[in-house]
Amino acid sequence: MTQRDPEVLKQKLRKFAEDFAFFKLLGIELVDFSPKWSKTRVALRDDLRNANGVMHGGIIATLIDAGITQAMLMTDEYQQVRDTKGSMTSVDLRVKYLRPLSSGAAICEARITHLGKRVGHASAVVTNEEGKEIALGDSIVMITLGT
Amino acid sequence: MTQRDPEVLKQKLRKFAEDFAFFKLLGIELVDFSPKWSKTRVALRDDLRNANGVMHGGIIATLIDAGITQAMLMTDEYQQVRDTKGSMTSVDLRVKYLRPLSSGAAICEARITHLGKRVGHASAVVTNEEGKEIALGDSIVMITLGT
Amino acid sequence: MTQRDPEVLKQKLRKFAEDFAFFKLLGIELVDFSPKWSKTRVALRDDLRNANGVMHGGIIATLIDAGITQAMLMTDEYQQVRDTKGSMTSVDLRVKYLRPLSSGAAICEARITHLGKRVGHASAVVTNEEGKEIALGDSIVMITLGT
Amino acid sequence: MTQRDPEVLKQKLRKFAEDFAFFKLLGIELVDFSPKWSKTRVALRDDLRNANGVMHGGIIATLIDAGITQAMLMTDEYQQVRDTKGSMTSVDLRVKYLRPLSSGAAICEARITHLGKRVGHASAVVTNEEGKEIALGDSIVMITLGT
Repeated sequence: MTQRDPEVLKQKLRKFAEDFAFFKLLGIELVDFSPKWSKTRVALRDDLRNANGVMHGGIIATLIDAGITQAMLMTDEYQQVRDTKGSMTSVDLRVKYLRPLSSGAAICEARITHLGKRVGHASAVVTNEEGKEIALGDSIVMITLGT
Repeated sequence: MTQRDPEVLKQKLRKFAEDFAFFKLLGIELVDFSPKWSKTRVALRDDLRNANGVMHGGIIATLIDAGITQAMLMTDEYQQVRDTKGSMTSVDLRVKYLRPLSSGAAICEARITHLGKRVGHASAVVTNEEGKEIALGDSIVMITLGT
Repeated sequence: MTQRDPEVLKQKLRKFAEDFAFFKLLGIELVDFSPKWSKTRVALRDDLRNANGVMHGGIIATLIDAGITQAMLMTDEYQQVRDTKGSMTSVDLRVKYLRPLSSGAAICEARITHLGKRVGHASAVVTNEEGKEIALGDSIVMITLGT
Repeated sequence: MTQRDPEVLKQKLRKFAEDFAFFKLLGIELVDFSPKWSKTRVALRDDLRNANGVMHGGIIATLIDAGITQAMLMTDEYQQVRDTKGSMTSVDLRVKYLRPLSSGAAICEARITHLGKRVGHASAVVTNEEGKEIALGDSIVMITLGT
């Protein structure tokens, strides 16, 4: 594994997120992140509403998935996977919906809670702008080192 | 509960899906649907790719969520909820990712497998255009009749 | 809802747990509990081992399920359900296995994290006697008041 | 991988199940099994009842976990893991409870639905003796070959 300057890596990843077509499409913003943690947000727009007029559950699921990935990117483990051309793959994603979001933004804090050699576990809490929880998420990640 | 012509209801729901801003944003298409079943699809576009170049897991989660909702809309139970101004809410959503989608479209078949007075269960299978399974999904729905 | 002395209720529930045939069968002990929280444990015995010689995953799932129920029993919401002859039912149970338990006991701390009028969410952490996490659990509970 | 007579392997595994202390404790019976499939059952006894008098959710979870393991044992993939002293581990277990079981037995059919080199997916349906579904289960299995 090569030596890395964390600040250089962070700037590179932040730049990637800013230019990322998928984030632009949905308006997902990377607020901040560090190894094993991230904060992302997405503001409600009319084209993100479901038929009941609140934020579509799929957007909340997407924000959680994106936030968990972002929390992984600065970990040593991920960088090692990258160096060895291995893979780190979400095996599943689970979202529990607590209350609807009818205005403002959804803010996601994601954490990598367990990170072993072969399996990682992540969880996320999504709140509205008043800090009320609107969803919980978790994901299992499978790690395969290359050679 | 008012009498309904299923074909009239279906046309109305199909029209809604065609004009639905959220579906347009992501390119989600409603292929077909009936009570307790739906088939939806989304073609891979560059702005739906994740950093590894395959379809973002959030889009697959969104397709499953949308497909399950669509499978619910023509059921008598949903129409009764609507008539009584009650609510039908996804309590959770789970996606298991089986393989990445690098080209073509993701096609989702969703089914309402159990539908009681207060709780419903749905499941979904997402395949690529060759029919290979790329993801499995399920959701628990809570039903509350109005008065 | 009748007035209740929390200590009287707690003594009654503790006595129930001590005499509970299911807990006796498996050796599940109720360490302590309060509204929305419980601590339970089960010591590894030879007849609780799986074919690999570690505690059977089903016992860990059972401990989580039992612990979540116990965390619910002293809540006002549960007592109200009981008073109105309503029901409080686990809709699902999920366990994530982090590491095997080969000796000692599994200790479960369960918490009711969200408790609304119709849906509750609970989570649990299971550790070994050294405090290392061996499993995570969560459950969705549906609440129906009687009349 | 050594050659194996499937009937000899099956007899060996059946004998193991009959003598398995954990199955004896709970009364879990192995009805039948083949590669990627199993049928197991457990009869309701008073010491398997929860406080509401129906089968404890933990027993249903245990039956699903045991059934999924049994469905795995005769697969070539499992035998290869065994030959190489690798490991096959349940990463998670999920149970969705559909209705309570108040008498008779719970019967579980488990299937390995996807079995790759590193990840397997299993699902299970639990019915009562009248064939009514009482629970659904699924599990993700991580496979690590030895050397």
